[in-house]
Amino acid sequence: MEEEIETLQTTLIKLVKKKDKATLKELLATTPVIDVAEALDDFEDKKITLSVIRCAGSELGADIFAELNTDTQQSIISAFKDKEIVALLDESFADDIVDSLDEFPASIVDRVLKLAPKELRKDINFLLNYKENTAGSVMTTEYLVLRENLTAKEALEKIRSEGKKAETIYTVFVKDAKRNLIGTLNLDDLVFSKDTETVEEIMNRDFVTCHATDDQEIVANDFKRYDLNAMAVLNKDNKLVGVITIDDIVDVIVDEANEDIAKLNKVSNMETPYLETPIYKIILKCVPWIIVLMILQVFSTLILSSFEGEIAKLAILSIFTPLIMDAGGNSGGQTTTIIVRSLALGEFNKGDMKRAVWKEFRVASCIAAIVAVFSFGWLMFELGVGIVQINDPRLIGWDKRTLICLLVASTLFITILISRMIGVLLPFFARLIKKDPAVMCGPLTTTLVDIISLTTYFLLWVGIFRGLIL
Amino acid sequence: MEEEIETLQTTLIKLVKKKDKATLKELLATTPVIDVAEALDDFEDKKITLSVIRCAGSELGADIFAELNTDTQQSIISAFKDKEIVALLDESFADDIVDSLDEFPASIVDRVLKLAPKELRKDINFLLNYKENTAGSVMTTEYLVLRENLTAKEALEKIRSEGKKAETIYTVFVKDAKRNLIGTLNLDDLVFSKDTETVEEIMNRDFVTCHATDDQEIVANDFKRYDLNAMAVLNKDNKLVGVITIDDIVDVIVDEANEDIAKLNKVSNMETPYLETPIYKIILKCVPWIIVLMILQVFSTLILSSFEGEIAKLAILSIFTPLIMDAGGNSGGQTTTIIVRSLALGEFNKGDMKRAVWKEFRVASCIAAIVAVFSFGWLMFELGVGIVQINDPRLIGWDKRTLICLLVASTLFITILISRMIGVLLPFFARLIKKDPAVMCGPLTTTLVDIISLTTYFLLWVGIFRGLIL
Repeated sequence: MEEEIETLQTTLIKLVKKKDKATLKELLATTPVIDVAEALDDFEDKKITLSVIRCAGSELGADIFAELNTDTQQSIISAFKDKEIVALLDESFADDIVDSLDEFPASIVDRVLKLAPKELRKDINFLLNYKENTAGSVMTTEYLVLRENLTAKEALEKIRSEGKKAETIYTVFVKDAKRNLIGTLNLDDLVFSKDTETVEEIMNRDFVTCHATDDQEIVANDFKRYDLNAMAVLNKDNKLVGVITIDDIVDVIVDEANEDIAKLNKVSNMETPYLETPIYKIILKCVPWIIVLMILQVFSTLILSSFEGEIAKLAILSIFTPLIMDAGGNSGGQTTTIIVRSLALGEFNKGDMKRAVWKEFRVASCIAAIVAVFSFGWLMFELGVGIVQINDPRLIGWDKRTLICLLVASTLFITILISRMIGVLLPFFARLIKKDPAVMCGPLTTTLVDIISLTTYFLLWVGIFRGLIL
Repeated sequence: MEEEIETLQTTLIKLVKKKDKATLKELLATTPVIDVAEALDDFEDKKITLSVIRCAGSELGADIFAELNTDTQQSIISAFKDKEIVALLDESFADDIVDSLDEFPASIVDRVLKLAPKELRKDINFLLNYKENTAGSVMTTEYLVLRENLTAKEALEKIRSEGKKAETIYTVFVKDAKRNLIGTLNLDDLVFSKDTETVEEIMNRDFVTCHATDDQEIVANDFKRYDLNAMAVLNKDNKLVGVITIDDIVDVIVDEANEDIAKLNKVSNMETPYLETPIYKIILKCVPWIIVLMILQVFSTLILSSFEGEIAKLAILSIFTPLIMDAGGNSGGQTTTIIVRSLALGEFNKGDMKRAVWKEFRVASCIAAIVAVFSFGWLMFELGVGIVQINDPRLIGWDKRTLICLLVASTLFITILISRMIGVLLPFFARLIKKDPAVMCGPLTTTLVDIISLTTYFLLWVGIFRGLIL
């Protein structure tokens, strides 16, 4: 990939310097827009970028412009004359412009809004009102509407004449005389229909819609479930206000997954590729989590500190604390991960929480039992082959050692059982109080599990095993 | 959602019992296929399911069949007469059948293959040969090919007459006289073109393709990058063998993200929704990781065990081990997560490893320094307000306490720096030896970081701080 882009850059520079506009136009027409944009983004010399965009003409130029990064976009707007910007905006889609405006400084935003054609400016302002991560923020307002009484032939004619301004013609919308949305029409169904059939006969009546304020994640799940190409977006009065297309949903799905992955692993989502993210931003995405987790560890420290006397009495106790804390943390983390992801993919319906908790109780009991039994055998083995050496004279004899292994195994049983139940309850609780399960559950599960595993361990020691061993 | 499905079920039962085929047909035609399938999956009484599929007719029946779960599909195939199965298969796509065959017992597979029309059987056998997670395993063989010398009008006629058998007509392929793929034609471009233009003039020449043996993840990244609707799949002789459509890629993107999320959090991907996965399967996805991680902990145990004497001398040392191990683990995990995900999304090119490692070195140094300074202050605070109580008579006086805090802070600096470098190096190394970075890096990072943090801590203690403190 990298090599192709470099070759493309060399050719672009050569053609611009030779002023060979014809060849340059031909090259731009036959190269994917995203590749051209990537090549242009990398130029130190913005003059080349400007010449290429100018040569591309306003239609292709607008497509390339939409894919450029914000810095390049800004330098183009700063360098372009008003007339050139108007031509570029004329061919742009409102949602692309809005995505860029979010990152521009105020002066550039003002210039763009001033120069935007009236209709586009209205759309931009409309889209700017929707909060991030809502359906409204990913929709576009350029869609095509047909009346239900058109024939297939008339519909195709209308799509031909008016469709170029729409973001997609693969799905168009059908409204009745009262301007209510009554159906969606897929282009393939239209192509396969007889010329004389009416739109009303061909359209889907069982179409799926969303509201502009819906979470984009829920919309993405519906796209996946119903294999949609496009979805109508309604306002609170159930009137059509926009359309979301599958290519934007692909980005939503990847972004939402990135966010879940990041937060579950205790780091904030970077939004831009690693190599393009400034170092200070990466630090800001990482350090707060580490520090918060360190502060939350005050509970483990308190517990360990209050049992310091016990550890001083029998240092071998401290050897098993990492093992217990890790096994608990890993188990709780597994459950949290499964449930957080299932919630994100919309797998749970209203009554499903009880079913999930009951199911996890059975799963957790089995896993806790299996791991406890295994750990008992494994620790006996470690003691047997001398991986853990016991020099303490009070611990000579296999009965004492068996008791130590039993202490660890029974701690693990209780810890894993409780950790997994926390792992299933916390995400549902987060959803209930309308917090993001992924952000809340990563750190909280770890902290709670640490507290529980250490407390269990030392309480079992003080309450039962100390008397038997010492 | 759940309520809608229940209402649908009630209506289906009523209509089947009343034998009201007309209303049932109308209902099936106006309800999304996936909702019908979900309703049918839940019926205890498979007779209702059979009646509904029969009433739907072979075309809609095949669509519903493709969305049913494997158990329901099996009971239908067992109950259907040969003639009915042939009619159903006749309307099915080869890729849907192959997805089901993977889960069927051999006897059912035999019956399906025997009854499949010759052409379909050939396609099925062809698809069955591709390994899981390759482009070949998600492609379908039902695509439409045009010649480059057709006019737009002729092309649209051909799509009208032959397109119904294809999985998509939004993108069709163009071959020249030598049967080489020379372009792709998007239906919208065709609709917008003049009747007399030729396919050669309208088609894209800069189309993106993949090979049948390519990893599906790479294909998905190209779909995202180029906003594709469909992609041509070539064999090793660069001949067209299939097409992948965006709806299948949406599933690939979600599946690949689920896999990364699962593995990074030390659990295997479940593939089916939590509530539908049998308990024994969930246990099998969780327990091996816990046990492997427990066995890998033998290294920490060895280290702790060999310093048991030091802990016995000064029990307060053991209070800070969880804090150090967690901070190291969290930092390394952050880097691993970022890099593994960037690799999965195809963000790194060939020469980028060095750049990433150098960048992470600078990031890691800053983060290690910030966290070390913070932790020093935080520990001094903990000691000051008595969260950690020091009763040991040898540790009275602030100079001793400052030294303890310095020991922990300097351990954290070294641990975080090294952990993050491991976090960036391991995923690249995994990619290099062609292992899945997500599987390999979760457990290995944890284990290595544990070893490094404990070793650093005790070596600093024995080498420098013990002499100063005791």
